[in-house]
Amino acid sequence: MKTQYYTATSLDGFIATEDDSLDWLFPLGDVDDTSYPEFIAEVGALAMGAKTYEWMLRHAETIAAQMGSPWPYTQPTWVFSTRALPTIPGPTIPGPTIPGPTIPGPTIPGANISFVQGDVRPVHAAMRAAAGDKNIWIVGGGDLAGQFHDAGLLNELILQVGSVTLGAGKPLFPRRVTEPPLRLVSVRQVGVGFAELRYEVSTRRATDLLGAAREE
Amino acid sequence: MKTQYYTATSLDGFIATEDDSLDWLFPLGDVDDTSYPEFIAEVGALAMGAKTYEWMLRHAETIAAQMGSPWPYTQPTWVFSTRALPTIPGPTIPGPTIPGPTIPGPTIPGANISFVQGDVRPVHAAMRAAAGDKNIWIVGGGDLAGQFHDAGLLNELILQVGSVTLGAGKPLFPRRVTEPPLRLVSVRQVGVGFAELRYEVSTRRATDLLGAAREE
Repeated sequence: MKTQYYTATSLDGFIATEDDSLDWLFPLGDVDDTSYPEFIAEVGALAMGAKTYEWMLRHAETIAAQMGSPWPYTQPTWVFSTRALPTIPGPTIPGPTIPGPTIPGPTIPGANISFVQGDVRPVHAAMRAAAGDKNIWIVGGGDLAGQFHDAGLLNELILQVGSVTLGAGKPLFPRRVTEPPLRLVSVRQVGVGFAELRYEVSTRRATDLLGAAREE
Repeated sequence: MKTQYYTATSLDGFIATEDDSLDWLFPLGDVDDTSYPEFIAEVGALAMGAKTYEWMLRHAETIAAQMGSPWPYTQPTWVFSTRALPTIPGPTIPGPTIPGPTIPGPTIPGANISFVQGDVRPVHAAMRAAAGDKNIWIVGGGDLAGQFHDAGLLNELILQVGSVTLGAGKPLFPRRVTEPPLRLVSVRQVGVGFAELRYEVSTRRATDLLGAAREE
């Protein structure tokens, strides 16, 4: 069981423009050519920030076109927010939800979303229980991934580095991690549009978890 | 003949910290394990900004330890600056230099440095004449590389992506390049400390130059 920050980023370290646009991302390649299909098959629980969640609601049609469904996750998802957010209509929405307007459109079956705020550690414990022996995916944004790292809970960064520069935007990972540095595990070219870079976090906790995983 | 921006960068797109430190960089690997030796062998002229030049003067000992000489370039070098900068003592310093105090220490043989300012285009023409059929290296910083790109003169970005995040610092390439995107040519892992990513700039000018080079 690993906690993984898997995201696409520009070459200069931005996961979105200042106004949260990902229009630069989709022309770069097909998600099915990346490691995403094998990655998501091993994910047992997801966490994301409010802006990532709101982007998904706003771009339901784009996501459906790319991923086959406007809410493409069957795994339980935790959304961190200090604000009330619209819920996605669906048959199973366990956990405390913050009331808000529902988005228009058809019911999305299988959406399993809990709204939470504050310390990531108790949420991580709940996610771990839900994920079983599968992995935990921190979808974004960068600061939420940073909060999991601050708590010693992040094991891997898996980055689809797109062949663009944005010059400004939402930061990939607003933290200084130099001592110890990360450990580059693998690189892979995906066409002319993406370089896939996989890193292990060199914390004692991460080392212990990875060591335990290797012994299994 | 290509104009290349070759640099090391953090994973999140910074080439140095806010105070121009590269202390995070040197522990990540040995320059001789990267493509640098074969890259520099094909370089016929260099351009750099004032901050890059000043960093080299301040870190002459570090550079000598890493590269074998405090000024490791035999190629003619153009330094862009609107300020007077110290010159490096040496037998051959052609071109107009701005007078300034010389740095202490032994004479550095072979340093061939011109101080320039303003439009990059006439300087590029001079560099091209000096480089012959070899390449032009834009050493940095990011904005100087951006100025060459703005003028349609940049053909390649060659990045040693270090396995660290800095969170803040001097930007890799403060420009938005999305339409068309860059073209990822190759990826290579250098130990656990670096991913080497090579990109072509998708401008008509770059395409023409590369097309001509392929026909040779």
